[in-house]
Amino acid sequence: MERVDHLADERNKAEFNVDDMKIVWAGSRHAFDVSNRISRLVANDPIFEKSKRAVMSRKELFKNTLRKSVHAWKMINELRLSDEEGIKLRSFMDQPGFLDLHWRMFVPAIKGQGTEDQQHKWLSLANKMQIIGCYAQTELGHGSNVQGLETTATFDPKTDQFIIHSPTQTSSKWWPGGLGKVSTHAVVYARLITNGKDHGVHGFIVQLRSLDDHSPLPGITVGDIGMKFGNGAYNSMDNGFLMFDHFRIPRDQMLMRLSKVTREGKYVASDVPRQLVYGTMVYVRQSIVSNASTALARAVCIATRYSAVRRQFGSQDGGMETQVIDYKTQQNRLFPLLASAYAFRFVGEWLKWLYTDVTQRLEASDFATLPEAHACTAGLKSMTTSATSDGIEECRKLCGGHGYLWCSGLPELFAVYVPACTYEGDNVVLQLQVARFLMKTVSQLSSGKTPSGTTAYMGRAKHLLQCRSGVRNAEDWLNPGMVLEAFEARALRMAVTCANNLSKFENQEQGFSELLADLVEAATAHCQLIVVSKFIAKVEGNIEGKGVKKQLKNLCYIYALYLLHKHLGDFLSTNSVTPEQGSLANRQLRSLYSQVRPNAVALVDAFDYTDHYLGSVLGRYDGNVYPKLFEEALKDPLNDSVVPDGYHEYIRPLIKQRFRSAKL
Amino acid sequence: MERVDHLADERNKAEFNVDDMKIVWAGSRHAFDVSNRISRLVANDPIFEKSKRAVMSRKELFKNTLRKSVHAWKMINELRLSDEEGIKLRSFMDQPGFLDLHWRMFVPAIKGQGTEDQQHKWLSLANKMQIIGCYAQTELGHGSNVQGLETTATFDPKTDQFIIHSPTQTSSKWWPGGLGKVSTHAVVYARLITNGKDHGVHGFIVQLRSLDDHSPLPGITVGDIGMKFGNGAYNSMDNGFLMFDHFRIPRDQMLMRLSKVTREGKYVASDVPRQLVYGTMVYVRQSIVSNASTALARAVCIATRYSAVRRQFGSQDGGMETQVIDYKTQQNRLFPLLASAYAFRFVGEWLKWLYTDVTQRLEASDFATLPEAHACTAGLKSMTTSATSDGIEECRKLCGGHGYLWCSGLPELFAVYVPACTYEGDNVVLQLQVARFLMKTVSQLSSGKTPSGTTAYMGRAKHLLQCRSGVRNAEDWLNPGMVLEAFEARALRMAVTCANNLSKFENQEQGFSELLADLVEAATAHCQLIVVSKFIAKVEGNIEGKGVKKQLKNLCYIYALYLLHKHLGDFLSTNSVTPEQGSLANRQLRSLYSQVRPNAVALVDAFDYTDHYLGSVLGRYDGNVYPKLFEEALKDPLNDSVVPDGYHEYIRPLIKQRFRSAKL
Repeated sequence: MERVDHLADERNKAEFNVDDMKIVWAGSRHAFDVSNRISRLVANDPIFEKSKRAVMSRKELFKNTLRKSVHAWKMINELRLSDEEGIKLRSFMDQPGFLDLHWRMFVPAIKGQGTEDQQHKWLSLANKMQIIGCYAQTELGHGSNVQGLETTATFDPKTDQFIIHSPTQTSSKWWPGGLGKVSTHAVVYARLITNGKDHGVHGFIVQLRSLDDHSPLPGITVGDIGMKFGNGAYNSMDNGFLMFDHFRIPRDQMLMRLSKVTREGKYVASDVPRQLVYGTMVYVRQSIVSNASTALARAVCIATRYSAVRRQFGSQDGGMETQVIDYKTQQNRLFPLLASAYAFRFVGEWLKWLYTDVTQRLEASDFATLPEAHACTAGLKSMTTSATSDGIEECRKLCGGHGYLWCSGLPELFAVYVPACTYEGDNVVLQLQVARFLMKTVSQLSSGKTPSGTTAYMGRAKHLLQCRSGVRNAEDWLNPGMVLEAFEARALRMAVTCANNLSKFENQEQGFSELLADLVEAATAHCQLIVVSKFIAKVEGNIEGKGVKKQLKNLCYIYALYLLHKHLGDFLSTNSVTPEQGSLANRQLRSLYSQVRPNAVALVDAFDYTDHYLGSVLGRYDGNVYPKLFEEALKDPLNDSVVPDGYHEYIRPLIKQRFRSAKL
Repeated sequence: MERVDHLADERNKAEFNVDDMKIVWAGSRHAFDVSNRISRLVANDPIFEKSKRAVMSRKELFKNTLRKSVHAWKMINELRLSDEEGIKLRSFMDQPGFLDLHWRMFVPAIKGQGTEDQQHKWLSLANKMQIIGCYAQTELGHGSNVQGLETTATFDPKTDQFIIHSPTQTSSKWWPGGLGKVSTHAVVYARLITNGKDHGVHGFIVQLRSLDDHSPLPGITVGDIGMKFGNGAYNSMDNGFLMFDHFRIPRDQMLMRLSKVTREGKYVASDVPRQLVYGTMVYVRQSIVSNASTALARAVCIATRYSAVRRQFGSQDGGMETQVIDYKTQQNRLFPLLASAYAFRFVGEWLKWLYTDVTQRLEASDFATLPEAHACTAGLKSMTTSATSDGIEECRKLCGGHGYLWCSGLPELFAVYVPACTYEGDNVVLQLQVARFLMKTVSQLSSGKTPSGTTAYMGRAKHLLQCRSGVRNAEDWLNPGMVLEAFEARALRMAVTCANNLSKFENQEQGFSELLADLVEAATAHCQLIVVSKFIAKVEGNIEGKGVKKQLKNLCYIYALYLLHKHLGDFLSTNSVTPEQGSLANRQLRSLYSQVRPNAVALVDAFDYTDHYLGSVLGRYDGNVYPKLFEEALKDPLNDSVVPDGYHEYIRPLIKQRFRSAKL
């Protein structure tokens, strides 16, 4: 087999050890080993082949997903994979399907909200996949506002049952993945009503389909909600709708860990603290942040490699044209995204620690840090997913025209990624939660309460409100203290300005509503500070490997200074930096770009993605792009015949001027 | 037939006459009448139905496009539609296909570059569509850099022929629409070689396929390049590849208006000025700007109507939840896009005038304004298409989860629109052309040369370099002079700073390359000034219709102040405004949003889009969204059967725990 590596020159330029960087990226030697092994297991299995996904019909794509999912589950069992390995396998399979919802939503919901008895009964079925479950919360007319859900679960003391009912069309469950065609069961969220009283939204385990012939049970209407964004992408998933017509379930299928309904219909709250639910939220959101870095890294890997392969302009005397990656405009757009991928990786790593910390505290009934942890994860989920969506599309544009080809991998990556901005909390709604928390923190400063965790900097308000940046030359922008202070001053001053403006309103809620846009910007500033500070903490810590730390420092300051330039209006209007200091930051950025340039390809190699997972002709490891673009083109069904279907009906009558008589 | 209008309340709120606004939007009563009539003609013809596009296979979609295209051509002939009407009909058909390339690229290329004899011969065939043509310029390895094309056309004096040849794989033509499966002919761009000398890139008319059986002629390899971004979208088009193996054409098929090759092989330039080519470029780019406003208006129309239909949060005492459009965060994202759609409309209108002006001057051999017109159209093409791409995606996000459904219309609109950022000049490359022109203009200021047209403000450099904004309260930001001066000061100061920084480099080209990112920002500032100034000129002029002018003024200042806020870093670092003035602009913006709010739905009604053209369940005129979402869902092939295909092979063995023995 011929082995070419059109990027060998690029790889030889690198000033650090890529294998060492792979460990840093993965988080540990163990994590690297697992990812490396499982990704190659998937890549080498023909059942997991992805290249025909774009030309499959909806039905073919869906059936192909069933096939892959069941194959994945079979492998997990036969190879006795650990939980960690199983999660990796599903992730490298890279095709949304019912397994995701069953394991990521249905099972955790029962674990989190079910009593011990309920867990015993249902998890033993779910863990073996004797039942397949999904998570039916969102309704046609109700997304972000969970408290506005309309589905009802009315207790009927005569039969000891709940009657699940969809009173309106807008109360239909709409969107749950795995619901449309596959799931046999669902955790359904509905307003609990006993004795005519509405106790708000609670979870219920509901069987939807017969375990014998898969037909929906009487009283249940269920189906697929139709095509979604893009080709392939989430169309492999049966996101579904679901309506209940007075559907009855036994009382013990209400998830009763936090509250229960007695045989007599009495509503009783348990003494299990409700805060535990927020612990789960922290877990889910930290995994979304971690996925953001993975997705952005994929896009950046494709765009970086192809920018090194592609040449445009600048040939002199008939020589080779210039590699696109050598243009400052390309570096100026691409390298901040490369830096962002690393930044999100490390903040994700830190969030894993935060989750462990929160969990331990919750178990010891210490709820003090929860609001801060909750605000922080909400904000980081919002910020990293928005930046990743935009970043993937930017990477597509950075690949020029060919980025528009499906086989570049970027259109599908974008289509499959963007829902992350909406699910688990709309990104704008989440930033408002952060803003509320910030306003509360600011208001408590005067009362002497010391803010902690990611808001600890607010405790230095007095200093931060009056300090002036000491940056005098471009090199000062590589000083961690000076960078941090600029970001802290900006975030604090924006928050304090919002608080001051809010205080001018008699009605706080009205003020909040009027100032929403400013509040979102203040929350964003706070979240960017968190990411920058965690990146700095990372590169100031102990990092193994030849040349690795130097590269990460470069990326860290690219990330910080790129944000500073992008949000210069914030920094200037709060007097956190002067125009001259802003201009010095730009100069430092340009110098950092030059330092990253020879390392760029190696820095994306460090992600250790297989060509299978990348799914991109442009991003191929070997850079052998152009011959492979032809190979991909020839696979299109339109190329099955030289003369296309439709020639005789349409083209020939047209050019023969017979269209008046032709059947049209 | 039941007629509901869930948006009637919104329409009743409007403080202006929508019918009058429709005329202003269309540009004239006549233009409105044509659009209105033709859009309804298309909407009412079942052949132009669009709703199944997402679930068609590639072959079905392509054949469906042939059917629609030929039907459109038949209608144009049978109804004896004018050119203007024909263009509208193709546009409202809303499905990319070969008609576009034949009429927009092939025919104009022959008109612009062919001699009178050539025009007579080829246009008489093309105008009747006895031949179908496309435009084969871009190559697999060469997009933006036309001078880097590799295809050769070598004159053979023995046979009086050109030999068209693709010497490498990267020289294959790649991307031309209509090429893959339909076109019988192409205008092919190739390096002209006579007597061993390379005369650079020229155009040639080349027959590709037999007019009898449509098979490619010997020496020609042609096919489709495969799937592109999104579902439906440009997959209806046969973008193609094309390779020549020493393919011969008669000498008289070189397009010889600007230069020719004699029987002896001598290369002779004609006395027709080459600048005429730039005139065509101005034409093409002004139409792209006009299309940007159309596309952005579609997205904004969908997002505005659905934001009025959709309710989330804020219900008190079990009442209705708040309309999403009432949230400031929604207004803050949506209304600037509404304003941008109008802004791009009016700058497009002005560009039409500019094209007429340039053409008249060219005919009188006055080339003085051409560089400025060229820079201006390049910059506006870049700026409006980038803003529109981002704006469409933002509108999709503004629709929450349902924007992700294909039937929202937004995914396909995005996928079909984004190539506009790349074709006819990559947007970053174009901004660099603008920057070069600006640097030249600045450098000539000291020599006393008076800049004209859109750079006229630079003639007031002395004032603009030292003036201070006189804005003292929020209302001052409604003063056209003050707004313009801020934008002029910012643009000029950024250009002058770039010029100063450039002058520090010994090698100008190296300096230009080093400062690319700053130069792009300076060019963007200049282009934004153009759009703001043309919008202000429009609203300061005579506008008919009850309440219309007031609405347009609101939108004009929203557009300007939104840009000011978005690029506050530019304005502050150039001292064009102070932080306090920036904050006053924000306050004025909030007030303007409140004024637009009751008029929002009527302002998008003024686009006069049919539901057919919008192609969006969320954007329906009647706001009857939720029942129609169900109707759409039920059309998906996955809903053909209750139990999905694949149940017996995959789901049943899984839940029955038989997967070890099942065939996988």
